[in-house]
Amino acid sequence: VQTTLENLCDVLRRHGMQPTLEGAPTAEIRGVATLEEAGPGDVTFLSNPKYEKLLQSTRGSAIVLKPGVAAPGGRNLIRVAEPYAAITVLIVELHGYRRHRPLPEPQHVQIAPSARIGRNPTIHPGVTIDADVVIGDDCIIYPGCYIGPNCRIGDRLLLYPNVVIYDGTQIGHRVTIHAGTVVANDGLGYAQVNGAWVKIPQIGIVEIADDVEIGSNCSIDRATLGRTKIGKGTKLSNLIAIGHGAHVGEHCMLVAQVGLAGSVSVGHHVTLAGQAGVVGHIRIGDGATVAAQAGVTNSVADGETVLGSPAIPIRDMRKSMVLARRLPELNETIRRLEKQVAELQAQLNGNPPAGS
Amino acid sequence: VQTTLENLCDVLRRHGMQPTLEGAPTAEIRGVATLEEAGPGDVTFLSNPKYEKLLQSTRGSAIVLKPGVAAPGGRNLIRVAEPYAAITVLIVELHGYRRHRPLPEPQHVQIAPSARIGRNPTIHPGVTIDADVVIGDDCIIYPGCYIGPNCRIGDRLLLYPNVVIYDGTQIGHRVTIHAGTVVANDGLGYAQVNGAWVKIPQIGIVEIADDVEIGSNCSIDRATLGRTKIGKGTKLSNLIAIGHGAHVGEHCMLVAQVGLAGSVSVGHHVTLAGQAGVVGHIRIGDGATVAAQAGVTNSVADGETVLGSPAIPIRDMRKSMVLARRLPELNETIRRLEKQVAELQAQLNGNPPAGS
Amino acid sequence: VQTTLENLCDVLRRHGMQPTLEGAPTAEIRGVATLEEAGPGDVTFLSNPKYEKLLQSTRGSAIVLKPGVAAPGGRNLIRVAEPYAAITVLIVELHGYRRHRPLPEPQHVQIAPSARIGRNPTIHPGVTIDADVVIGDDCIIYPGCYIGPNCRIGDRLLLYPNVVIYDGTQIGHRVTIHAGTVVANDGLGYAQVNGAWVKIPQIGIVEIADDVEIGSNCSIDRATLGRTKIGKGTKLSNLIAIGHGAHVGEHCMLVAQVGLAGSVSVGHHVTLAGQAGVVGHIRIGDGATVAAQAGVTNSVADGETVLGSPAIPIRDMRKSMVLARRLPELNETIRRLEKQVAELQAQLNGNPPAGS
Repeated sequence: VQTTLENLCDVLRRHGMQPTLEGAPTAEIRGVATLEEAGPGDVTFLSNPKYEKLLQSTRGSAIVLKPGVAAPGGRNLIRVAEPYAAITVLIVELHGYRRHRPLPEPQHVQIAPSARIGRNPTIHPGVTIDADVVIGDDCIIYPGCYIGPNCRIGDRLLLYPNVVIYDGTQIGHRVTIHAGTVVANDGLGYAQVNGAWVKIPQIGIVEIADDVEIGSNCSIDRATLGRTKIGKGTKLSNLIAIGHGAHVGEHCMLVAQVGLAGSVSVGHHVTLAGQAGVVGHIRIGDGATVAAQAGVTNSVADGETVLGSPAIPIRDMRKSMVLARRLPELNETIRRLEKQVAELQAQLNGNPPAGS
Repeated sequence: VQTTLENLCDVLRRHGMQPTLEGAPTAEIRGVATLEEAGPGDVTFLSNPKYEKLLQSTRGSAIVLKPGVAAPGGRNLIRVAEPYAAITVLIVELHGYRRHRPLPEPQHVQIAPSARIGRNPTIHPGVTIDADVVIGDDCIIYPGCYIGPNCRIGDRLLLYPNVVIYDGTQIGHRVTIHAGTVVANDGLGYAQVNGAWVKIPQIGIVEIADDVEIGSNCSIDRATLGRTKIGKGTKLSNLIAIGHGAHVGEHCMLVAQVGLAGSVSVGHHVTLAGQAGVVGHIRIGDGATVAAQAGVTNSVADGETVLGSPAIPIRDMRKSMVLARRLPELNETIRRLEKQVAELQAQLNGNPPAGS
Repeated sequence: VQTTLENLCDVLRRHGMQPTLEGAPTAEIRGVATLEEAGPGDVTFLSNPKYEKLLQSTRGSAIVLKPGVAAPGGRNLIRVAEPYAAITVLIVELHGYRRHRPLPEPQHVQIAPSARIGRNPTIHPGVTIDADVVIGDDCIIYPGCYIGPNCRIGDRLLLYPNVVIYDGTQIGHRVTIHAGTVVANDGLGYAQVNGAWVKIPQIGIVEIADDVEIGSNCSIDRATLGRTKIGKGTKLSNLIAIGHGAHVGEHCMLVAQVGLAGSVSVGHHVTLAGQAGVVGHIRIGDGATVAAQAGVTNSVADGETVLGSPAIPIRDMRKSMVLARRLPELNETIRRLEKQVAELQAQLNGNPPAGS
């Protein structure tokens, strides 16, 4: 797509933004790039002040930035209150989402006769769809994916290569799953009998709501009984482990390598930062934030931010950390007090200090 | 399967349990479900006291629970000392283990002419079995699996989709591996030569004993020399990393995202909780427990429980944590002491306190 | 390969080492094994002093070890300053690198007509190579791999089974990727609009330089804009998450389960130990070392070693840890001081101690 700065400002206005253009309205724009990589024909942006010095050197044809930020003269500037939100709109406008190659009739795929697939499917070779699966319209399924018996899936499913979905999984509309992710494998369900682990059949399922996107190489256990749930609009990054029977609410964000143990309940609009872990059978409240690498061992209140391992609310942590950093100072104070007390005792008793 | 409460009590007795039935012996039961999800025809259970309030609202036809726990009137109850063990038996009785679809003669599979496969195989399309592989009877291998040259595998192998087993791996009987797991890839074996990493051929193998089950998306390095071993009856969850040359003993339980560095030796009946990590060349003793997110840097004695990063025995940790939590209090005590000492000095000297 | 100790010493000399042979120059050697597993015909080695007692029991025909280390009589010994470097050379000499089965013309593969593949390819069944891909000479691609549109790849690519490479990825020469790894999937790029996450098209790419090796089941995000980069000669272990736009320098070593957030910049010759995590938008300096499980929240200077979560330089950590361990002692000192001060006050006032 090729367009002009003027047109791009119109696009932003249609999205409820109020851009101010400084420079040439007819400058031609073909793409979006970072400050470092932008060249002629690219619009770029400054959102994180850390990168402000790159304004000097960027070769892009226009820069999206906040009102009031100093910029070198002679540049085309689009000033807008939220540059990152604006650039998001411009990326969609200029580049769009990934286009998936249309395919002829499915070939070299294994689709069970009892499976029912909606209109306009794009199913690559090497896909297996097992008995009694139901899939909605407009699915795109890349090579090497496996969908087990009795899965029920909505419209606009997008599976990247080598995704595996075990039997009985229920998936809503507009769900995207990236390569290598496994949904609804058996969890760690065993009973100990005479010193050996005996497997408990894992008869529960996984339920994934509408508009969920899941990254690559994640593992989501099926429930032992009942359901493991991922709520509407929730986004998972890569290498995330979701334990059996965990329930994650709507519009959450789980960063890479997060692990939830079994039967955890996560509210809506929760953020779990990278490598955070949560023990079983506790609740993370709505709107809570769990810091990177935190180890959550107790339920977290709505809106609370916790960090550390074991995790504690951020306000308590700050207090403890300040004190922990002051340990050397405390240590010196104690030594000084000891000496003073010994001296006082000596003065009072007319004796040399005890123990010295 | 449809049966009665009376029959289910007989099943429990055959497993050495002593259930007491309160209610209708002929009540019909078709399945097992959680307290929340159970409906007519389901038997449910109370094991974790946290869920006791759900006894009031469950719609299940019968509840398995401990003797002495209060329950609403008019319910069918099976009282038994270990409700979770009992419900495990009932899940097996009523639901059984996953049934795998029988297949016709293997089609669209790549089996090397030199491979030998036992009786009654179920091999899905898209499987590759490389040269000189030997597999026992009754294997089930889902689509997209790869078994490299010279692997030796026992009876009743169960591989879910897209499992990859590199060359030379030795696997016992009744081993199950979930989707996406990789066994015997090269570990991080390099020597530094003039500032660059030079690869060391990884000529060791992986040996997996009988009755092991491995979760999805795990990575188990082959040994550089010798063997990486997973002992009989040990169970691994998902996204676990086992380093080259690590030896894990019998009947262990490794929770999701655990990482063992190279040449770690883990005894038998060890539990490693989620996201725990162990540095190389140390030993975790028999029956030891490593807490979630623990970072184990020293060998752990038999039966010891360790936690924290770096991990310390739980009894030491408790002492330190109590003190760490009391840091604010200690800080105040020190301030008070300082003041008192200054006052005492002033009194003794007839001077104003020094430093104030 | 069968050879003699004398010949092996010559091999070491050709690699610039200065071995001294004690024992029979004509002893026949066929392989390398660990002290525990070596038998007749094997050369073994002692590098880590922890295993010194195994010198007594090993059944190997020769031992590589340092000058001066005591060894039982009657053994063939090769003494050399760096036994591990020497044994690496001997492994290559005696065992070589993995040999990959040659294949006939590619069969059952899906190669887009617009893809261009160099000379002498080994492409297994079940591989998909999408539109406009360019691959150099001598590639080896195992079953179940997927290479998306517009990828540009150099010579001697080695992909183990089920590797997935998304569209537009650029890969240098002699790159090896182990099974199940996913390169250039979309990262966690969303903008929050009215309480829901809206996807930002991820139009950046991944660039992997020459001589990189990546372990199994890793996930490397494509950049939102620009590039995610893995530098020349860098080696990754398994289950590693690299965030969108992260740049990893040359000759680094990333151990299993490391996670880098988006836009991290890692210098050259950096070591990140197992399960370490790094927050976004910071820099890890050249030659720095990040300890296992460290959580890095601030930039790290060149050559610095950091540990802990949040990570601090090792010299500061040692000080804090010593004090943290002395907390119980500090606590007792404070209690004693309190008592002494109360006594002093009582003595001064002729009154019983206040508050007791």
